[in-house]
This record gives sequence, structure tokens and C-alpha cells, in this order.
Amino acid sequence: MSLSSATRIEVKSLTEHLWFNVPARRGFLNITSTVEDLVKKSGVQEGLCLVNAMHITASVYINDAEDGLLHDYEVWLEKLAPHEPVEQYHHNRTGEDNADAHLKRQIMGRQVVVAITRGKLDFGPWEQIFYGEFDGHRKKRALVKIIGE
Amino acid sequence: MSLSSATRIEVKSLTEHLWFNVPARRGFLNITSTVEDLVKKSGVQEGLCLVNAMHITASVYINDAEDGLLHDYEVWLEKLAPHEPVEQYHHNRTGEDNADAHLKRQIMGRQVVVAITRGKLDFGPWEQIFYGEFDGHRKKRALVKIIGE
Amino acid sequence: MSLSSATRIEVKSLTEHLWFNVPARRGFLNITSTVEDLVKKSGVQEGLCLVNAMHITASVYINDAEDGLLHDYEVWLEKLAPHEPVEQYHHNRTGEDNADAHLKRQIMGRQVVVAITRGKLDFGPWEQIFYGEFDGHRKKRALVKIIGE
Repeated sequence: MSLSSATRIEVKSLTEHLWFNVPARRGFLNITSTVEDLVKKSGVQEGLCLVNAMHITASVYINDAEDGLLHDYEVWLEKLAPHEPVEQYHHNRTGEDNADAHLKRQIMGRQVVVAITRGKLDFGPWEQIFYGEFDGHRKKRALVKIIGE
Repeated sequence: MSLSSATRIEVKSLTEHLWFNVPARRGFLNITSTVEDLVKKSGVQEGLCLVNAMHITASVYINDAEDGLLHDYEVWLEKLAPHEPVEQYHHNRTGEDNADAHLKRQIMGRQVVVAITRGKLDFGPWEQIFYGEFDGHRKKRALVKIIGE
Repeated sequence: MSLSSATRIEVKSLTEHLWFNVPARRGFLNITSTVEDLVKKSGVQEGLCLVNAMHITASVYINDAEDGLLHDYEVWLEKLAPHEPVEQYHHNRTGEDNADAHLKRQIMGRQVVVAITRGKLDFGPWEQIFYGEFDGHRKKRALVKIIGE
């Protein structure tokens, strides 16, 4: 009996937690190069890369690495889901003051899924992966999961 | 000829439809334990779990299982995409009254993708999967698709 | 030694770029049948299909193919993230006038992940895949990545 190379597939996976500590209530971190390094480390040539916030007051999203835009996101999210007055949110009756962060995170999203093609993130010209923090001042995590062959 | 165990990979998949009937126009259901049971049933150790609404007036999203927050989502979504007056939406000229539900669902999202690590949903401390209904009073479905090894 | 058919799994993948040139600033294109054809071409029976905008001022989302609703999305997104006045956005100080497009795209989302079951997109009754353009008048791409067995 002989096995063709096509059947000798090994499904590969990589799991890694990224830790952040944003020293303010809100902030945006470009994590693209960290994720790129993990794709390389995984050895996956064709597959999918999931990156998600592990906390429910933070986002992982893909958009432009341009400071003016990051400012615009901050202003816009505060308009759509204002932090103050904190009493307007029932969630804050639990002793929290972060209800707005749970709302902002829904606009920006929990996760991105990126194609891996020929061993690299298959990105358009301006796509960059960001961690968006809406309730910082403490250590929080994002997860990178890579699956493929 | 010998085959190492590493090449004896069997790609596993599981597909399951979850049915809901929310007895109101809007509501949120925590479906985390149901999805966890399906991950266990699938036998997948390393992989991805997709959960998506199969209807376009509902969402699947991940956030906090806290009643105050669910109230806040309800109020906030109604502010961003009000149900009334129904005449404000062209979609409702088709005889529907659910245009707002198609908008609300875009804010909250259609799907989540969750990593499976060592046979379990790889979750942060507060992540819970919710089905968000924005046009209820009838049977609707979500899909769980698990792929991995 | 004998190999059962279950171990002769070949992981399959397909990568394809779709090109669009929307002849207006904004517009919505139904790309469902194109994606369906690619699923068929891939030969994947059980797997996942990722479809994402490769540009950061466009979306791929799933909702209804109903002209009234597309009108409603246009009006609603313009209300939540207005194009004018362009000076209100710091991003536009770079010489761009598309900051609103970066915001609108976050509401509608970058990507969808769809289950493939028995060789087909596993869709509910009204699910259709759309490319949403928010800064058109030029050639732009979406990516289709299919992974499975």
C-alpha cells in the first residue's frame, strides 16, 4: 500500500493569549505584527486566524492605523454610547461604571477572522488588527487561534 | 510502511440547529451551556465553533449575563434604531413592521466564532453566548458548526 | 496495514478575490451566487467559508435582499455616521474625505463566516451575502476563503 502525499495532512493549530494593560479607560493598540509572528510560528500555510477579545468590555477589529481615525472612533463611540451619566445604565447599579464599554464593544466587534494564504495573513493594503480597550486600567487578554494545514 | 500518529488526523465536524420561540418582539437568551454540550459531543479538541443566527432579524453575540445590561441593550438599540414610527422605513412598505430588527441585528452582529482548546470553548472569565431576538413571536433558528480535530 | 477511509482526509482550501467597482460613493451588491459557485468549485463538503472586505471603508454582511431595506440602511448609516461636514473628522485632515466610511463599516462589519454543510452554504431562508461599499468610485476587493474537507 502507498499513501500519496496529499493524504498525509497534519491539521495544525496554535493558541496564544496576548496580555494588555491600557493605562487609561480607553485606548487602541495595533497588534498586527504580533499576530503575524504567531502565524509564522504556527507553520500554517492555508487556514484561518481568529483573534478575539477575551473580555466583554473590549474589542478586536480591523481598520486603519491612522491617529486621526483613532481619535474619530473615540469621539463617535462616546456619542453613540456615552460613559456619563453612569446612572443612566441599569448595569451600573451592580457597582460597575462600565456599561458604556459593553455597548461600545458591540459596535466595534468582539473578533476578527483572517484568512491565511501561503503562510501569511491575507490582507488588503490597509488592513491592521487593533485591540480596542473601553474599560482599561487593568490587565486583560485577547486570544489568537490559528487552524489550518 | 508505518504511519505516525500525527498523520492519522481525522477532521471532525458537527452541525446542529437550535430552535427558539421568544414570546415577545424582543428578548435575549443565554445559549452558552447548549453550545458547550455540542462542543463536548463533537469530540473536537482543537478547532473553531461558529454560532450564527439563521434569521436576519436576530443576532448571536457574546457579552455579559447580567440582567441590568440586557435592559441597557434593549433601551440603547431602541434609541439607535427605533421600532416606531414603522412608516419611517421603506422596508415596512412590503407589509412588514420589522425594519428596525434588521438594523438592530447589524449592531449586535450575526455570528460569533469561538476557539476550541483542549476540548472546551476557550473563553475569558465573563464571556457568554446570547441569542438576541428582535422580531419574535415565532420559531426561529441558530446554527452551531464545529470544525476541528 | 490498512487505512480506513476515515483517515484519508484531505484538507481542502480555496482562495479567491472578488473585484468590485461601485460607480457611486455608496452601494450594496448581492454576492451570494458568486460565493455559492466558489463553494461548489472548492469541493468542500463540511467546512467554513469566510468572506471579508479587503478594504477598510467597505463591509461584507448578511441580511435581506430587499430594496426598501437597502434604502433604510443607507439613511440609517448616514444618520449614525454622517459624511458631512467632512471637517468634523480628524481623519479627513490627511486629505481624505472618507472618515465616515471607516465608521459605517464598523456598524455593518468586515466579514461573515458561513458554515458549509453537505457541500452548500448552510443558510436560513432569507440570508444573502452583501458587499457594502461606503467609499466607491474605484476598484476594490473582497476575499473568499474556504476551508474544510
